[in-house]
Amino acid sequence: MEVITSKDNRKIKDLSKLLNKKYRDIENKFLVEGFHLVEEASKSNKLLEIIKTEDCECAIDAPTTLVTYDVLKKLTNTMTPQKIIGVVSKLDEKEIGNKVLIVDELQDPGNLGTIIRSSVAFNFDTIILSENTVDLYNDKVIRSSEGMLFKINIIKKTTQEAIDYLKNKKYKIYGTKVDGGSNIKNIIFPNKLAFIIGNEGNGVRKEILDQCDEYLYIPMNSDCESLNAAIATSIILYEIGDK
Amino acid sequence: MEVITSKDNRKIKDLSKLLNKKYRDIENKFLVEGFHLVEEASKSNKLLEIIKTEDCECAIDAPTTLVTYDVLKKLTNTMTPQKIIGVVSKLDEKEIGNKVLIVDELQDPGNLGTIIRSSVAFNFDTIILSENTVDLYNDKVIRSSEGMLFKINIIKKTTQEAIDYLKNKKYKIYGTKVDGGSNIKNIIFPNKLAFIIGNEGNGVRKEILDQCDEYLYIPMNSDCESLNAAIATSIILYEIGDK
Repeated sequence: MEVITSKDNRKIKDLSKLLNKKYRDIENKFLVEGFHLVEEASKSNKLLEIIKTEDCECAIDAPTTLVTYDVLKKLTNTMTPQKIIGVVSKLDEKEIGNKVLIVDELQDPGNLGTIIRSSVAFNFDTIILSENTVDLYNDKVIRSSEGMLFKINIIKKTTQEAIDYLKNKKYKIYGTKVDGGSNIKNIIFPNKLAFIIGNEGNGVRKEILDQCDEYLYIPMNSDCESLNAAIATSIILYEIGDK
Repeated sequence: MEVITSKDNRKIKDLSKLLNKKYRDIENKFLVEGFHLVEEASKSNKLLEIIKTEDCECAIDAPTTLVTYDVLKKLTNTMTPQKIIGVVSKLDEKEIGNKVLIVDELQDPGNLGTIIRSSVAFNFDTIILSENTVDLYNDKVIRSSEGMLFKINIIKKTTQEAIDYLKNKKYKIYGTKVDGGSNIKNIIFPNKLAFIIGNEGNGVRKEILDQCDEYLYIPMNSDCESLNAAIATSIILYEIGDK
């Protein structure tokens, strides 16, 4: 099979545009890097094709293009990339399940990826991302999700639309509040619920938080003002998911 | 007061060496950036001096050097630094308390900082860092700890020394193990205990793990192979700290 050796190759140039959100949205595709993520994409029937180096011994059944390592580097932002890149169809949005996480304006891609991973671990079935949340298909989100984005239903919707829909369907909606909230350890959670998390610095916007049905907090030492956003969210998912 | 405008200024050049672990170890000092961290250092009586821009209105009582923003940038790795840097004495090691976290060969600075923050939140009083763990005074560790490194006793020791000491003092030592471990929710923890966490990729080294008195795991969906290291650790600290 021919090996692409030029970084100016048309196909590579076109694919490299997928590092950019604008083109991902136009093409409805995204890139994943490394055998583990390519394999998860393949299992989910979302893998369109792979780009790999000649010496990559990954056995994945998909249309394949061989490239030099230098050319492959055009398709990733990592410094020392793995030797295989997958071109993947964006995920389908399915019906909203019973355990819903609403993510309102979260900014850090590592936090979002980690939260997706924890959501799968603790049996949440749906994540709703608000319009101003970091892009799901950002490479850092995908990497830190460890492929878990393929194992959960992720939906884009404004937070207000999500709240209106869920209230109409009798979901109980939870937010966090230290003053006036309940200790999470003492709450008995219903079967159908949503939990809203907000921006790392500012939390959930007031007009959204005011619409929650109930508020909770994680008990902690007063020396510590707050937890990291992904940590706090994961502890809450852990407590809810188990009950 | 005179304002330093040259990046080649001797004092600035000397202080910039503190971005390097080798010099931090020689000088027994480190740098922190931003008002919040400088303030925490000051409250802990560890702040030696501050370097700030003329327009920085931070009221901190310490010997002060004024610099231009360009000069200040020499003292940090962040792209758009805050306008104040603190020069801080390394922290004192105190006696080991009752709730001990042993960190064995953790590599990611963000993870270590986040774990320090969670340790304070959940009432651990001592963290022991093994020789191959990322440096406590790395700027990313400090930033992600959100200043919590000033509020907990942090000790450097080999993991084997720590285990020998703690076993001798009748601490119960916990590690994680999915097969053959107990569900963390069902464990009644003693007053004096240590929990060992390991490297992000490989976990705790076998020869260390084998010396634990008891093993635990976090119950989770089998679709998810593992949690992020800082998340798993924080959930365990949360469960232990409360009991």
